[in-house]
Amino acid sequence: MSQDSLTYAMRPIGFVHSPYRDTSQIPKGPGAEHHAEGTLEIRPELEDGLQDIEGFSHLFVLWVFDRSEGCDLVSAVPLDQETPHGVFASRSPRRPNPIGLSVVELLGRDGPRLRVRGVDMLDGTPILDVKPYLSGVPAERLHRGWVAEAEARRKQ
Amino acid sequence: MSQDSLTYAMRPIGFVHSPYRDTSQIPKGPGAEHHAEGTLEIRPELEDGLQDIEGFSHLFVLWVFDRSEGCDLVSAVPLDQETPHGVFASRSPRRPNPIGLSVVELLGRDGPRLRVRGVDMLDGTPILDVKPYLSGVPAERLHRGWVAEAEARRKQ
Repeated sequence: MSQDSLTYAMRPIGFVHSPYRDTSQIPKGPGAEHHAEGTLEIRPELEDGLQDIEGFSHLFVLWVFDRSEGCDLVSAVPLDQETPHGVFASRSPRRPNPIGLSVVELLGRDGPRLRVRGVDMLDGTPILDVKPYLSGVPAERLHRGWVAEAEARRKQ
Repeated sequence: MSQDSLTYAMRPIGFVHSPYRDTSQIPKGPGAEHHAEGTLEIRPELEDGLQDIEGFSHLFVLWVFDRSEGCDLVSAVPLDQETPHGVFASRSPRRPNPIGLSVVELLGRDGPRLRVRGVDMLDGTPILDVKPYLSGVPAERLHRGWVAEAEARRKQ
């Protein structure tokens, strides 16, 4: 198979239960904070894969923008509506592969269900993977490009 | 389509150039640090999607474990070879969806090529997405479950 036609089929490991039914309800843009609680419901036959997950305070969740269609390589986003930015320099849902990434706080587990805080996905969002969050980049080493500039402009 | 048969087809946005030809060359387990430099070569027709990425110091890279086959819901991993852990509580490559997640430092950009530090992927690994790294969980709020326990045992 040539690399040009290569694709990988991904099947959801579960679904998100979230308070959000519509993207307009999800906090976005400057100062958006995600404190909403929700549940990651993993398929029952995969429950063994959650063994020892309770010890982690935070998780990466990889999921599908299943209600977004198409892709914009360059577009304006809520944080900076005046200047368009590249899709790989933003969290826009209209991506070549519509995969979302969120960090959530693990509140508890009930069998194949993980109660979490910090969901920013729509209710019913398909989950592709869950991974433990092990370490972060120290804030003093982080540069946040146009995001930092847009936040600074908003504060003026 | 029933949810049981739902799949999403993902197509690589590019490929990793890395010094690693074999998984045995990649630092793993206790104290593993990833300082290797490599290149994320994005497909030329997607280059516009990189606009303004230069301002970010760190990126999330989502990629495919393309040389891993199968899935173990529970397995032992290099850091803790005595006690098996669930796949969603580890970074094992044998996952239901073989997606890897790495944080890399962006060193520079040359057209559709991103020079980065911190690659832990094999040479030729397919890339599914690149996202800006915007913030991390403060270390004082982080609990790392069995990983912290295994590290502590190693130090005894």
